[in-house]
Amino acid sequence: MNITIKSPLDMHLHLRDGDMLKTVAPLTASSFSGAIIMPNLVPPVNTKEDVIEYKKRIQEAIGDENFVPYMTLFFKSTYTKEFLESVKDEISAIKLYPAGITTNSEGGVSGFDIDELRETLNAMSELNIPLCIHGETNGFVMDREAEFITIYEKLAFNFPNLKIIMEHITTKESVEALDKFENLYATITLHHLIITLDDVAGGMLEPHLFCKPIAKRPEDREALLRVALSAHPKVMFGSDSAPHPKDAKEASHCSAGVFTAPIALQVLAELFEDNNASLDNLQRFVSDNAQKIYNIKPIEKNIILEKEDFIVPKNYNNVIPMYAEKTIKYNIK
Amino acid sequence: MNITIKSPLDMHLHLRDGDMLKTVAPLTASSFSGAIIMPNLVPPVNTKEDVIEYKKRIQEAIGDENFVPYMTLFFKSTYTKEFLESVKDEISAIKLYPAGITTNSEGGVSGFDIDELRETLNAMSELNIPLCIHGETNGFVMDREAEFITIYEKLAFNFPNLKIIMEHITTKESVEALDKFENLYATITLHHLIITLDDVAGGMLEPHLFCKPIAKRPEDREALLRVALSAHPKVMFGSDSAPHPKDAKEASHCSAGVFTAPIALQVLAELFEDNNASLDNLQRFVSDNAQKIYNIKPIEKNIILEKEDFIVPKNYNNVIPMYAEKTIKYNIK
Repeated sequence: MNITIKSPLDMHLHLRDGDMLKTVAPLTASSFSGAIIMPNLVPPVNTKEDVIEYKKRIQEAIGDENFVPYMTLFFKSTYTKEFLESVKDEISAIKLYPAGITTNSEGGVSGFDIDELRETLNAMSELNIPLCIHGETNGFVMDREAEFITIYEKLAFNFPNLKIIMEHITTKESVEALDKFENLYATITLHHLIITLDDVAGGMLEPHLFCKPIAKRPEDREALLRVALSAHPKVMFGSDSAPHPKDAKEASHCSAGVFTAPIALQVLAELFEDNNASLDNLQRFVSDNAQKIYNIKPIEKNIILEKEDFIVPKNYNNVIPMYAEKTIKYNIK
Repeated sequence: MNITIKSPLDMHLHLRDGDMLKTVAPLTASSFSGAIIMPNLVPPVNTKEDVIEYKKRIQEAIGDENFVPYMTLFFKSTYTKEFLESVKDEISAIKLYPAGITTNSEGGVSGFDIDELRETLNAMSELNIPLCIHGETNGFVMDREAEFITIYEKLAFNFPNLKIIMEHITTKESVEALDKFENLYATITLHHLIITLDDVAGGMLEPHLFCKPIAKRPEDREALLRVALSAHPKVMFGSDSAPHPKDAKEASHCSAGVFTAPIALQVLAELFEDNNASLDNLQRFVSDNAQKIYNIKPIEKNIILEKEDFIVPKNYNNVIPMYAEKTIKYNIK
């Protein structure tokens, strides 16, 4: 049986720039009606002009396809209310990176001093601009996200009218935090619903499954699956699809990121089916919840997933996708 | 100041076969007086003839260097007392692998049924042949070794006269197990004294630091350091140096193993120095403890470590060593 998803949204996406942008943007555009575009370019997207120019380059890369890039700024505690008012209509969120925590995050926040952040976060609250956070400390790799929960809670408590989105959550602790504060939301990736650290490093080491935050324990994956499959109203799909060339992955020092854009929607459908979750919940997880949380109305675009075996390509211009050369059960019509 | 180590021993070493053997065996032979040689070739070393032939190939690879390969058999529960008596003088230990747990371990033990193991292990006890074990279950990668402790304890309890060596321990639980049973001993690698999972996967992913058992948490490393630096009488140095060609490491599926043979002794000296541990303890950790535990008398061979900066080669015939292109503080005279 075919599945129709209405206006699917990817609420966390890396498109990069230049040739890579041209390779990957059309792949997302053919599966989704829109996506929240991460701003961690080099240098990061942090002016109105940056946003407008980057959006233009994305649109050029996509061509005729009907697709909306929801733009974001790279958070800085120096953003004034005046600046945010001027850029407000061009962006859908602001993304905060702790300094040095992942790819191209060097200019991020170090230390989470409420007084230092107050002006910007109050302005974002007033202007109703969501704050997306890569929530990891620089602690031990398996503990980083759980350790960051206290920072999420501090921010949620001090800025009760700010929508805070815990990006790409990977732990049961983050799932639990969702229900503690009204203004905490989360995105969940496809790969964190499927893999644990065992898949990355339990057999051979698998660089194409290496990402940040790193995949965690089986009980963490179970907690993520529970809220995704039940379409918990505070969670949304965000692929965190992050392309790197093959030789940056199969290398003596391997970059973090799993490239799922071309297969995300198809494999999500398979995952919901295999777990006997309803199609309504799939629709909520990949679109409806995000519409409510972000207060956005996406373009009307139905994606039809046909139930037929599909062999995932070996690569897309030298970027290796998750499930490369494996057979998945759905194909986009 | 130079350091002299008397007859250093590497109590856990992979030399492989063929060209790889020819590349790596001389490197160990120039640092150590002897080493316990792992039997997980393809097919594994499990007859007297295999042992004798493999030993001959090792000696050929080493040439004139004064070095003793202490040979081992690949454990099988079908070994009879008669067989073990016949092979006893050719081997120093028998190595047990749980089936499928690491490189070339497919023919190992699955399930640890005492009745099934009784005849062989009783014979080993009577003949005073130590049993070396790769102690991991097939559970979650961070839990495997701790989960295996109950099996160590079951074996130690049921075969109180069998010397059981917990190979390449990586957890505080294994360190604690050492003091629970008189007949449990352990080897510790260089890399597990230095790295945690953070070094493997906390920044970029580092395939050359990927090994089995995987490096664990900071508190585990601390526990290992404590018993190594204090030269706990039940622990010995065993490098588990495991060479793989560069393209088997920097690959879409990366093999497990860290290649430390050419730098192990030098970096151990640096580690003991940096931690203000005594040279007497270094001598015990890299030789004296092993002599007592295995009841062996190594050849007399002094290795002199000269205090001078040494840049570790980029590779040895396409095998990348730990610390490749980095500067270490000692050099072998």
